[in-house]
Amino acid sequence: MNLKRVGNQTVVFANPPVILSSYSVVGPMEAQGPLGKTFDKVWPDNINGEKSWEIAESKLLQEAMQGAIDQAGVPNDQIDFMLAGDLLNQIISSNFAARKLGLPFIGLYGACSTMALGMAVGSMLIDGGFARHVLVGVSSHHDTAERQYRLPTEQGGQRSLSAQWTVTGAGAVILGQSGAGPRIPAVTLGRVLDYGETDAGNMGAAMAPAIADTILNHLQDLQRQPTDYNLIASGDLGSVGANLTREVMQRSGTPLGPEYTDCGLLVYDQKQDVHAGGSGCGCSAVVFAGSIMQRLKAGELKRVLLIGSGALHSPTSSLQGESIPGIGHAVVIEA
Amino acid sequence: MNLKRVGNQTVVFANPPVILSSYSVVGPMEAQGPLGKTFDKVWPDNINGEKSWEIAESKLLQEAMQGAIDQAGVPNDQIDFMLAGDLLNQIISSNFAARKLGLPFIGLYGACSTMALGMAVGSMLIDGGFARHVLVGVSSHHDTAERQYRLPTEQGGQRSLSAQWTVTGAGAVILGQSGAGPRIPAVTLGRVLDYGETDAGNMGAAMAPAIADTILNHLQDLQRQPTDYNLIASGDLGSVGANLTREVMQRSGTPLGPEYTDCGLLVYDQKQDVHAGGSGCGCSAVVFAGSIMQRLKAGELKRVLLIGSGALHSPTSSLQGESIPGIGHAVVIEA
Repeated sequence: MNLKRVGNQTVVFANPPVILSSYSVVGPMEAQGPLGKTFDKVWPDNINGEKSWEIAESKLLQEAMQGAIDQAGVPNDQIDFMLAGDLLNQIISSNFAARKLGLPFIGLYGACSTMALGMAVGSMLIDGGFARHVLVGVSSHHDTAERQYRLPTEQGGQRSLSAQWTVTGAGAVILGQSGAGPRIPAVTLGRVLDYGETDAGNMGAAMAPAIADTILNHLQDLQRQPTDYNLIASGDLGSVGANLTREVMQRSGTPLGPEYTDCGLLVYDQKQDVHAGGSGCGCSAVVFAGSIMQRLKAGELKRVLLIGSGALHSPTSSLQGESIPGIGHAVVIEA
Repeated sequence: MNLKRVGNQTVVFANPPVILSSYSVVGPMEAQGPLGKTFDKVWPDNINGEKSWEIAESKLLQEAMQGAIDQAGVPNDQIDFMLAGDLLNQIISSNFAARKLGLPFIGLYGACSTMALGMAVGSMLIDGGFARHVLVGVSSHHDTAERQYRLPTEQGGQRSLSAQWTVTGAGAVILGQSGAGPRIPAVTLGRVLDYGETDAGNMGAAMAPAIADTILNHLQDLQRQPTDYNLIASGDLGSVGANLTREVMQRSGTPLGPEYTDCGLLVYDQKQDVHAGGSGCGCSAVVFAGSIMQRLKAGELKRVLLIGSGALHSPTSSLQGESIPGIGHAVVIEA
């Protein structure tokens, strides 16, 4: 059998899947950020009339997924798989969204890397001939994440300067075998690395080694340089993690230039007082589904590397003194 | 492109992936059950010298995965993906096992359906030409699950008769493109169904509709009857859920005969006082990796349908009054 692999970790597609549509739904704070105009739908507040933040998060995801379906104009019976994940325990936002949509469902967990993970797995399902269309979507919500991972939101505690702000938002795409839209020619799935960071208020530092590892493996597998990309965007490392990634890449002899940025640095304005930047599954998802997709379609970007970054801890593992494992999954997107 | 799909939900492989090895590790209670002699490794107690039940669960999974790797005799650099999941918040058992193994990692969440989900996705990655070998493994642990989902284990509270006992165990398989071993010719991924069951002490009832739906769709897609299988084994419906599944199938005009059973009914003896049976990701994983694989290899079983069953709730969703969505993923295994 013809193996669609190059190097150690990279898959190269025979028929690169097409991103037929993308849709993003965000909360008011994300709408007030620098990318505000690039989102498809904005909620007036973080709960939008739902009875809990958790139900609201699932609704965000449903709306993003339905938006992507409607925009692609693909009938539900031609969508062969729904791939979704989120940060909540047992990924309930995704499970409850899947209950509404009624599609064969593959639940994923990759923390904040889940959008890239879903796009990577979904692309393999398309290119392998297992699906005509695949729906991929993820969500996060500031208030559900904060009270699950850290402190009661009502407490209003002081956050450390390395802390990131969980994006309230959901992004979704429809992948197809053919049609008009940016294509996914290759993906690089990441390994879990852990250099001992234990501070859940410094996830950027926990994730940076894994992100650098994935970028380095990706470039080596395809014999490319960072400048072969117009944009290399990590998921949500924030300022601390993005700087560390630059440093690791520099020391590895493959410095990143101005083509490198981080979705967590793009989504909020410094004036919004989010400290190190945005985070959450929704962060890279809404930046990709909005701004990056628009720039690809406009021809402003020709080739993008999106590296979803995930901090794979739980409150339980942190309370038990375990350090935070990180992972990075990379997806190439070409206009 | 040639689409490898039949009917609505079923994928049929061009080159059915081979199960090159399987390995199971269980706790003492599972070893005392009727399948005790079929497991590869038995722990003397549920913590085995680790500092917490959660760390112990991750160790169980590592041991099962390493066992499957060793048994297959495949070098690590020829295992292209590790697929894993478990019941713990943010699937930490799997994340920490992935940290040790260092393989490109796809985290899955399908509650107790995760072994079947992993085998289904892993088979697609093999058949699609994206991997030479895929490692799939899942775990569950009575004490980690009980305190996370229900009550403090120290409390020793009365359990309802419909409640199931979470299996302390981990199972893993190595899938490959070729070689000796049972093959996976087809898989049917399930949809999420929810008929309103809210009792986390009655997961069998919550999951039964989705399991029946997947079995019916599978049989219809392949134009088969239940008797075309020597064994149809649901993951962990227990006595309540298995009886309900029989009833739904009967009313749908496709009654299940003696070929149907449930891994949750096989793993413990009635004398072990587990009430409705076993549950947890590890339940179907260790029954499959042990007993079912041995019977396939011995020629006693020719064709098996394994339907992983998942209850997709969380303690948060249950406390907020939400009902429990169910899912079933089916994998065909032929000797």
